[in-house]
Amino acid sequence: MAIQTPYVAVDGVIKIFEDERFKGIVLIERKHEPLGIALPGGFVEVGERVEDALVREMREETQLEVSIEKILGVYSDPRRDPRFHVVSVTFLCHASGTPKGGDDAKNAMIYRLEEIPWDRLLFDHAQILRDFLLGK
Amino acid sequence: MAIQTPYVAVDGVIKIFEDERFKGIVLIERKHEPLGIALPGGFVEVGERVEDALVREMREETQLEVSIEKILGVYSDPRRDPRFHVVSVTFLCHASGTPKGGDDAKNAMIYRLEEIPWDRLLFDHAQILRDFLLGK
Repeated sequence: MAIQTPYVAVDGVIKIFEDERFKGIVLIERKHEPLGIALPGGFVEVGERVEDALVREMREETQLEVSIEKILGVYSDPRRDPRFHVVSVTFLCHASGTPKGGDDAKNAMIYRLEEIPWDRLLFDHAQILRDFLLGK
Repeated sequence: MAIQTPYVAVDGVIKIFEDERFKGIVLIERKHEPLGIALPGGFVEVGERVEDALVREMREETQLEVSIEKILGVYSDPRRDPRFHVVSVTFLCHASGTPKGGDDAKNAMIYRLEEIPWDRLLFDHAQILRDFLLGK
């Protein structure tokens, strides 16, 4: 049976807390095409649960150990990634500490919610962050 | 770039209402291996949003036109399907009318919640239905 489905990926909206104070969310600067600012994330591996993929990808791209809160949404518009069709299971999660770029992320930084670089966000990550801010 | 991820599928917990009265949920009898009772569902096609895949699969397997309420969960245990690794985006939805089997479903029937055939449910659909009943 030849089955063809979209790729599955995970993305994370990571809320950073320090001493119980909210400091902002984490965005990365991508090392590979398409270049720009994005939520940290990556492909789910065969044999891996999406929750495990999320923790692994956040660790690889931001060096943070995240705690998952919930699924924010499943984003699956065929045009959301210019390369091919990727379904993103997007998680809301939190962590403490200072993010540091790694793997596919040249940099990983904390952004205050009032300083999100909306015009530089890749994929549908502006929509995802608006959904997050609207409490969806 | 050779990317390998699990397959993506959708499953639906369809609540049936007639004249505003709740009648139960829809389960199907599968036509192909693995044989047994399951939630209606199927693979997402490349180029298709998961919401559109859900409406299409529910129509193909139950002849019902469903309205989506929300995502109940994303089920991704690598062993949930004995054949290969399938990530299921599972939706809560509702419809009216009488289900009728079609496509991969030999039969489609309404089950009262107190008459769910727990021991005959395939995949992780017993867990999904317990999550639904627990209001997750």
